Amino acid sequence: MAKKENQFVQEITPRDVDFAKWYTDIVLKNDMCDYTDVRGCMAIKPYGYAVWELMQKEMDQRFKDTGHQNAYFPLLIPESMLMKEAEHVEGFAPEVAWVTQGGSEVLQERMAIRPTSETIIGTMYSKWIQSYRDLPVLYNQWCNVMRWEKSTRPFLRTSEFLWQEGHTAHETHEDAQEETIRMLNVYYDFMVNVLAIPVVRGRKSESERFAGAEATYTLEALMHDGKALQMGTSHNLSDHFARSYDIKYLSREGKQEYCYTTSWGTSTRMIGGMIMVHGDDRGLKLPPKVAPIQVVILPIAMHKEGVLEKATELYNEIKASGLRVKLDDSEQSAGWKFNQWEMKGVPARIEIGPRDIENGVVTVVRRDTLEKFTMPIEGIGESLVKLMADIHQSMYDIALEHRKAHTTHAENFGDFMDGVKKGFVKAPWCADPDCEIEIKCVTGASTRCKPMDEEVSVKPGCKCVFCNREAKTMMYFARAY
Amino acid sequence: MAKKENQFVQEITPRDVDFAKWYTDIVLKNDMCDYTDVRGCMAIKPYGYAVWELMQKEMDQRFKDTGHQNAYFPLLIPESMLMKEAEHVEGFAPEVAWVTQGGSEVLQERMAIRPTSETIIGTMYSKWIQSYRDLPVLYNQWCNVMRWEKSTRPFLRTSEFLWQEGHTAHETHEDAQEETIRMLNVYYDFMVNVLAIPVVRGRKSESERFAGAEATYTLEALMHDGKALQMGTSHNLSDHFARSYDIKYLSREGKQEYCYTTSWGTSTRMIGGMIMVHGDDRGLKLPPKVAPIQVVILPIAMHKEGVLEKATELYNEIKASGLRVKLDDSEQSAGWKFNQWEMKGVPARIEIGPRDIENGVVTVVRRDTLEKFTMPIEGIGESLVKLMADIHQSMYDIALEHRKAHTTHAENFGDFMDGVKKGFVKAPWCADPDCEIEIKCVTGASTRCKPMDEEVSVKPGCKCVFCNREAKTMMYFARAY
Repeated sequence: MAKKENQFVQEITPRDVDFAKWYTDIVLKNDMCDYTDVRGCMAIKPYGYAVWELMQKEMDQRFKDTGHQNAYFPLLIPESMLMKEAEHVEGFAPEVAWVTQGGSEVLQERMAIRPTSETIIGTMYSKWIQSYRDLPVLYNQWCNVMRWEKSTRPFLRTSEFLWQEGHTAHETHEDAQEETIRMLNVYYDFMVNVLAIPVVRGRKSESERFAGAEATYTLEALMHDGKALQMGTSHNLSDHFARSYDIKYLSREGKQEYCYTTSWGTSTRMIGGMIMVHGDDRGLKLPPKVAPIQVVILPIAMHKEGVLEKATELYNEIKASGLRVKLDDSEQSAGWKFNQWEMKGVPARIEIGPRDIENGVVTVVRRDTLEKFTMPIEGIGESLVKLMADIHQSMYDIALEHRKAHTTHAENFGDFMDGVKKGFVKAPWCADPDCEIEIKCVTGASTRCKPMDEEVSVKPGCKCVFCNREAKTMMYFARAY
Repeated sequence: MAKKENQFVQEITPRDVDFAKWYTDIVLKNDMCDYTDVRGCMAIKPYGYAVWELMQKEMDQRFKDTGHQNAYFPLLIPESMLMKEAEHVEGFAPEVAWVTQGGSEVLQERMAIRPTSETIIGTMYSKWIQSYRDLPVLYNQWCNVMRWEKSTRPFLRTSEFLWQEGHTAHETHEDAQEETIRMLNVYYDFMVNVLAIPVVRGRKSESERFAGAEATYTLEALMHDGKALQMGTSHNLSDHFARSYDIKYLSREGKQEYCYTTSWGTSTRMIGGMIMVHGDDRGLKLPPKVAPIQVVILPIAMHKEGVLEKATELYNEIKASGLRVKLDDSEQSAGWKFNQWEMKGVPARIEIGPRDIENGVVTVVRRDTLEKFTMPIEGIGESLVKLMADIHQSMYDIALEHRKAHTTHAENFGDFMDGVKKGFVKAPWCADPDCEIEIKCVTGASTRCKPMDEEVSVKPGCKCVFCNREAKTMMYFARAY
């Protein structure tokens, strides 16, 4: 038995030995996804997809609550349509997959599989929007997109991925800016209150801006290994796409005006972030709100009289309280089951055996802290609902502690390099794109964002942490996925 | 005012004048979808997409209740992978869109955008399935697919469409057959109890079989114009794909055996069917279970004291009863609103004015029958929930009546031709594929299915309705979309 348990746990490479291998072990051994024979594309297996469905549900509700509606636009974008916004083309053309043949017919114009949909949606908005009465237009699309990536990693970077992309049109620049920040904050709320991930909200540097946008806002999370992951972005596109795609409206003053548009997106990449923020050497740790199974019941001495009956009763009661619960009455050993459900990241495990039943309690083990304690059977549903909230908060707090402990402030290059090895570095910066490229080359760190919730102004005479020229702003840097 | 109302209604071409035009008017004027500059592809607008989301929710629950899980597989299928099942290739290759370039790189092997996913999913199942303990595998995928169509019509036939495709693997042929019929019946239940559409369940002829299947089962609905529409199909693939894609398992007897697989699918095409079964000259008639708005409240003499307050109270009460309700307090005329919401197919309209409030009632107009009656404000939520069930049943009954009135039995060619102009024809048939082709050429009718819920055996000596050779079975024929 002991041997079996050991074997089982050993299957996952420890985080500190090889973080990349640990991550791959987690996603593959938990049946979250698998590699395929299609270059750069993964298959998302039911356990991974169930997490995505729960994420979708939470996000979709937030989109609808803020007045957005779902729609669906074509997968293919004719080349000439993609080409209208110069900066956008330059940014995306190098990573586009092209359809050149349909059935037996060679196409006169090749078509891109959408890498993102500003161009096709802009074309439709140009047709649909006539007057200020039609504004704002607040649509979102859940779909697949494709970007021909050279090196790929499950969930984090794949040629095809699933995402949502919001696309909105407004009367004024101010309205578009408000929407951009509104959706950034919807994402923030989702990440904090659903994924239990603390994120730094901020604005991207000029060179990290979305191709064609005026300004890109981002949510940056710190992974356990000290690298950053961009969890979502929200773009103020100003009138750039409106001018390229002729999205005009008759204003309240009776004049033809260009709209101001926004776009914002998050993807299955967040699943990778969630794994790398919360997981440990035993496997996944799922935040309760996106755990396909929140509570697993393991009957102990299952064949003793009354155990399975009591476990089934518990199951029904916990289910009735709205939790996602599973009763594992398989013939595997208890040790095997402990390891299995820990690896799968189920937030709480309940053990119930003859002695527990006698005492009117169950044994509960929290996945996040591995604390073990008893809980009265009476009122178990309500107690577990509270426990889920506790686990969520505790996971968030630990992730925040980790981020704080791995965020440093640097005024000189030595401190910068030390900080970059640990995590986020906040440093004064000249804001020159050439300096940004050099920093990346020398240190491996990229600009993450100019934070919105912190002071970013620099004192007169303050120097850039890297090039020693005059600093313009404080900036977050990190090595990133 | 009267003029305006007339104008409004006149915008929709009457069904009997030009059914095709009527259909296009309905989908475009109701903002369900729109044409795009992408050949054969449509944009699904929020009102159409909201119907699809409600359909998805109802179906997805049924899939999960029957033990299925959702997963996601790659959009692209390498040519060599597609080519492994000979009959399947022959059926689908002519309508595949090919990706030949990724970024700046010309691909060594071109890739198909999935027309359906048996091939890529079969490849993964081959990797995932080892033993009988892994069976059955019961996965479903919600996604987009592409078939390069020559002539397209919104929802009914577009190059890209949204659908779900179930793919399952089993130990025995019998298990696969059971699953095939189980899912056919899940579809049947959905169509009858959600879409209020009567469908004929049955088996497709040899030549209408899915490319690569042993047997295809279908659900056939009759549209208002007497043409049939295939609403969904369920395929028993026997061990055909298992042999081509090497999907094997270690049996209970310790032997390597091929799996038996099934696949089954329904698509956004059902939206077209729902429109053509239920709609009338005033516009859409939405079955309550998939109506994005089930009840619309129109305050009459809105600016009189207390009207808007009472309407808001009603709104809250109806919403609390779980119905999807909208309060239309826009400044449009009452006549305009009546037409608008009738065109949009909202199942029930409530009018509330000062006199109604005085009497403690509201005026209700059912969209399906246009009946107008009063209903006490007290208990309005519950009364409307009941009304929705009534409307559903009544819509189903009317559609069934229509189908019955347009289904004939033919023993000779004259009766067959008369019947085909009206709707379904049930007739004795020789089951020869060549005869099937000739029937199609001469009459425009195709075989729809050999019905499962009716007697299909023929008496000795009975002749084929078309070629006069010996009949083998009774068959449903119709002109079809």
